[in-house]
Amino acid sequence: MWTFINGDWVEAGKASLHISDLSVQRGYAVFDFFRTVNGQPLFLNDHLTRLQHSSSTLRLAIPYSTEQLKNIVTELLQRNQLQTSGIRITITGGYATDTYTISTPNIIITQSALTMDESFDENKGIHLVTGEYVRELSTVKSINYLMGIYLQQKVKDAGAGDVLYVKDGFISELPRSNVFIVSQNNELLTPNRNVLFGITRKHILELAKTFLTVNEQPVSLQDVLSAKEVFVSSTTKRLLPVFSVDGKTIGSGKPGPVTKQLSGLFLSLEKATTNK
Amino acid sequence: MWTFINGDWVEAGKASLHISDLSVQRGYAVFDFFRTVNGQPLFLNDHLTRLQHSSSTLRLAIPYSTEQLKNIVTELLQRNQLQTSGIRITITGGYATDTYTISTPNIIITQSALTMDESFDENKGIHLVTGEYVRELSTVKSINYLMGIYLQQKVKDAGAGDVLYVKDGFISELPRSNVFIVSQNNELLTPNRNVLFGITRKHILELAKTFLTVNEQPVSLQDVLSAKEVFVSSTTKRLLPVFSVDGKTIGSGKPGPVTKQLSGLFLSLEKATTNK
Repeated sequence: MWTFINGDWVEAGKASLHISDLSVQRGYAVFDFFRTVNGQPLFLNDHLTRLQHSSSTLRLAIPYSTEQLKNIVTELLQRNQLQTSGIRITITGGYATDTYTISTPNIIITQSALTMDESFDENKGIHLVTGEYVRELSTVKSINYLMGIYLQQKVKDAGAGDVLYVKDGFISELPRSNVFIVSQNNELLTPNRNVLFGITRKHILELAKTFLTVNEQPVSLQDVLSAKEVFVSSTTKRLLPVFSVDGKTIGSGKPGPVTKQLSGLFLSLEKATTNK
Repeated sequence: MWTFINGDWVEAGKASLHISDLSVQRGYAVFDFFRTVNGQPLFLNDHLTRLQHSSSTLRLAIPYSTEQLKNIVTELLQRNQLQTSGIRITITGGYATDTYTISTPNIIITQSALTMDESFDENKGIHLVTGEYVRELSTVKSINYLMGIYLQQKVKDAGAGDVLYVKDGFISELPRSNVFIVSQNNELLTPNRNVLFGITRKHILELAKTFLTVNEQPVSLQDVLSAKEVFVSSTTKRLLPVFSVDGKTIGSGKPGPVTKQLSGLFLSLEKATTNK
């Protein structure tokens, strides 16, 4: 497998950074992650736009234009010949002689194989626990997953699948997913603050608006617990029903009709986008 | 200069980690940093105890005992022959094939030259700006300095030297320093929550108790602005007077008597500890 680092193509196993990089020293880096379907990048423009936002917010100057990045991704696809994969572009704070000051960013692009379901699986869902936390600079896809990984022990102890961040009674997101609820009056709601604006989230909102009332607004934990349906979204999960939160069953405890309909629409969009 | 990585001694310029390390992938690592004075580690036991706390909280198993770590530090000192230096021990989440799960930690020990003042400098002090933030898992010395580095632009724009974290009107710490105030009734106060328990902080508190009323308690920004004296403490700064916060002069705008007395006591302790 080939990996791209700062203009060089290296064998993935040999891709390394000097320890003075600000990611190692101070956790200072951003990234984005997208899938390929049929060997084609999914929603690449969306991901590159968000990467640009993350980088510029943290004052990291990406050393390539969007067109150049697309060309590098194309070469990566040609070299590795993976049809179903994940591609991660990481931009770090660069090598810092004083261990603290941003310098010329290092850029790393990796690809790895993914296994994705071909259709919606009625039996798949996730149990969540809650964790008190809200992520700093939430619109930036930084590498700070300290709390996400720290809380995995609580997740494991509860026999759950992941953690839902709650602060002062309001939910925000999961470490790597957005969250949606279908309220008792059949509105699709998702938090509008303290979240990473997921690309899957964006397309779900667009699809949902064609047949539902949709609102991006504060959502309380109580709203979640009393919802008809709850699901999470991410690049690797698409839409995944939430069966319970802190041991309390959501709705029927099975995938609901809105989740199923949106999953179907999202899969169709994914196919239409990558069959060109 | 020699660097220690996972049992190997390598030339500092060649010390690297594979990009699958959890520090690069997810900012998941801890460290500690101490000085050498006259070629001897300062407060080494305190730093190793804190490193153990940081590591165990994040479920990172340090692959060496405390005695083994001390022996490695001794060898590092012999190899590099630096009298006045900083030594950093970093413990990362290890190489994660799934980019998310903790594995066998990587351990890196680096040494670099430092320049330290020999005595208290009446003219040295720092101007601070405030930034709205509180660090997660504050007692853990993690590598998450995302906000600290992000806020350096605000610091620079204000012509200041660093940022003081404030949340809901209460202060906690600076990205790399603790903060103390001398109140109007001559008590030494420092926040007791949401802070890293600094080693310099610990020794200042012990020294101050011999001649002052000392309280670890919540400290508001208002308390800071109305204080007689404010100073920050860290391994590389020892005690450093704060001259202003958000443009508002603290006390006389010059080093105060308590700060000066404590600085003298701390320097004496430092010398006594490393002259054995």
